[in-house]
Amino acid sequence: MLDTQNPQAMIAGMAAAARRAAHQLARCSTDQRRSALLRAEEAIRAASAEILAANATDVARAKAAGLTDAMLDRLRLDEARVAGMAAGIATVATLPDPVGEVIDTTVRPNGLELSRVRVPIGVIGIIYESRPNVTADAAALCVMSGNAAILRGGSEASESNAAIHRAFCAGLNVADLPTDAVQLVGTTDRAAVGAMLAAQGAIDLVVPRGGKGLVARVQAEARVPVLAHLDGINHVFVHASADPDMAAEIVRNAKMRRTGVCGAMETLLIDSGYPDPAALVRALLDAGCAVRGDDRVRAFASVAAADAADWDTEYLDAICSVAMVDGVDEALAHIARHSSGHTDAIVAADEGVANRFLAEVDSAIVLWNASTQFADGGEFGLGAEIGIATGRLHARGPVALEGLTTYKWIGRGTGQVRS
Amino acid sequence: MLDTQNPQAMIAGMAAAARRAAHQLARCSTDQRRSALLRAEEAIRAASAEILAANATDVARAKAAGLTDAMLDRLRLDEARVAGMAAGIATVATLPDPVGEVIDTTVRPNGLELSRVRVPIGVIGIIYESRPNVTADAAALCVMSGNAAILRGGSEASESNAAIHRAFCAGLNVADLPTDAVQLVGTTDRAAVGAMLAAQGAIDLVVPRGGKGLVARVQAEARVPVLAHLDGINHVFVHASADPDMAAEIVRNAKMRRTGVCGAMETLLIDSGYPDPAALVRALLDAGCAVRGDDRVRAFASVAAADAADWDTEYLDAICSVAMVDGVDEALAHIARHSSGHTDAIVAADEGVANRFLAEVDSAIVLWNASTQFADGGEFGLGAEIGIATGRLHARGPVALEGLTTYKWIGRGTGQVRS
Repeated sequence: MLDTQNPQAMIAGMAAAARRAAHQLARCSTDQRRSALLRAEEAIRAASAEILAANATDVARAKAAGLTDAMLDRLRLDEARVAGMAAGIATVATLPDPVGEVIDTTVRPNGLELSRVRVPIGVIGIIYESRPNVTADAAALCVMSGNAAILRGGSEASESNAAIHRAFCAGLNVADLPTDAVQLVGTTDRAAVGAMLAAQGAIDLVVPRGGKGLVARVQAEARVPVLAHLDGINHVFVHASADPDMAAEIVRNAKMRRTGVCGAMETLLIDSGYPDPAALVRALLDAGCAVRGDDRVRAFASVAAADAADWDTEYLDAICSVAMVDGVDEALAHIARHSSGHTDAIVAADEGVANRFLAEVDSAIVLWNASTQFADGGEFGLGAEIGIATGRLHARGPVALEGLTTYKWIGRGTGQVRS
Repeated sequence: MLDTQNPQAMIAGMAAAARRAAHQLARCSTDQRRSALLRAEEAIRAASAEILAANATDVARAKAAGLTDAMLDRLRLDEARVAGMAAGIATVATLPDPVGEVIDTTVRPNGLELSRVRVPIGVIGIIYESRPNVTADAAALCVMSGNAAILRGGSEASESNAAIHRAFCAGLNVADLPTDAVQLVGTTDRAAVGAMLAAQGAIDLVVPRGGKGLVARVQAEARVPVLAHLDGINHVFVHASADPDMAAEIVRNAKMRRTGVCGAMETLLIDSGYPDPAALVRALLDAGCAVRGDDRVRAFASVAAADAADWDTEYLDAICSVAMVDGVDEALAHIARHSSGHTDAIVAADEGVANRFLAEVDSAIVLWNASTQFADGGEFGLGAEIGIATGRLHARGPVALEGLTTYKWIGRGTGQVRS
């Protein structure tokens, strides 16, 4: 029995079981992992009523506790959402398998053949908030990439997560994979998150999924590696050479398609050489966006004044800060100072300027003539994503199956010894 | 002026200057970085007398302080060693440049073209002990890969490191690269290492180079990512099918070529089906190696008894623990339990068994019919190495230029917006 009174011991026990399961998963064929996911998909579909009943309990409790409508919406499941969750698992099962991929091979002068081969990372901790679908999404991505998952969902979704987890494991079981490959940490123990973050060597990687508070806590406390992004303070720079229609459309889309996503534009930079800056501000205002401008913007547009904090603010709302800049150099300097390193874009017809922007902006994703809202694993062709990373090591931008692998060196010799 | 009384402020100031230099380096052409290294090589050669004089001061001080002969040998430079250091810089200048390499490109159905392009990591901290050549080696690898380096060498080598650093920076200066690209932390401030390890967001990666004490401290304290290995508890498993001559030669070489390197074998596992296990033990004994055997080994060889701690010990000496195992399963179980994840090898003629070993041993380097002593960036064809990593993320095994880079996503569109 795990000692749930001692969170360190509980997590150590779960991680040890996860490690054994991970070794088993790493040895599975692609087909075994694929079919386990398809069995999990079926099990989730079959358990739909049970999952919805569990979710109703969570929602009722959350309502009583006075959660906001937005939080309730993230929490709430219906038949379509459960079906979508199951379909998501099936999609992951169709993705190319990175495990076993040979990254490169070299034959040394002494005949030793060396290859780098992709292998699973091992044990992945996922710490998330109210959306119960993360339980299924994260489990599917981890299992498909040969990793064991230790899931810690939000307490408000505990019944839903448990029901989804039960169904997922039933699927693993039918496919003869160890159910320890996907373990769910109970939410009664608030110290469990701390124990996960401290589990150096036992948990190989933690991925937080949720609001800024959660991500900030994970980044501040973690002793294990973390893949995450804290902020998406994303910029669109409209260069003097930009096509006006394209610029207006990208600006509108980057800000207003969805204001609450991490890929949304938060700051618009307009080149002082751009012929009609007022049209860009108007495009935002007409779409229902509040604009906060610098002095040069307010000289031609009747908008609120941006203060110093605006340039470092992720609004996640229909608000945009707008600044005039003198050319690409000033745009680059502004971005270097204020970008959170997530996604920044340039709209320009001038290829030389665009290439400079692409080369010099030091963000995970840099786009030319495209909306920042494309920052998403699905849109990038990865089929799914475990998250978007703005750190500098291992994986950047949208992270999916490949980002959940590492590599080892395999050497094949014929008796070589070193002289 | 940097406030050397406040190590946090001092490191923050150095890291900020390093970041600016890193941005400049990242924009340099390959040729600029190459020629900067060649200028540094020339400067080191020209400063040879000065470096040797500084080294003589360090050595005299170290002798007076009673350092061991082994430590004095690591510290001591002569003309040949200085020339070797300069030649090492020149070698790094000839390596393929990973910066700008396009890892992959995909064109999405909407026409958006997405590429992953290698970029430098940014600011790398190197914390090392007595060998002064690390000053030049690490600086060369960082500059060639477009990174700025913050170097913290051992206090016993402070004069030597300062002289080498001065010469290296003179070379950067001649090549018009910022000297802030390679900064040396003074050794008078013992708290500087702690400040480097705490510099989350300011230093992107720390690489410790030195003994186990240093690496353990760095791994325990660091809030920034670390690439390192703590131990090289490496195994050679001789399978029943192994060619006896090959097995004896690999065993002898893996242990005795150099006993003090991290790639040395520490434990020999002999399959109980192997025809002549005594010959393998004799090969070690004849080469001057002390053997500690389990009961089954001591039944045929008159050697000391291994105790439980032996299987987890990195001797770095002419000592080897030897155990008999029943087949590859038991070998895999022993390795899973005791390996430090550095380098493990199998000697076998049976390809099926060898492939199982290569697939299932979860170490950074797994070898078939080759000596573990090949675990080295030079031997792997990387031209050099900043170190060997046994962690699971970013880079494993020997780490050289590519391991000092990350990637970003570059997207080229024609006005795409997300629906």
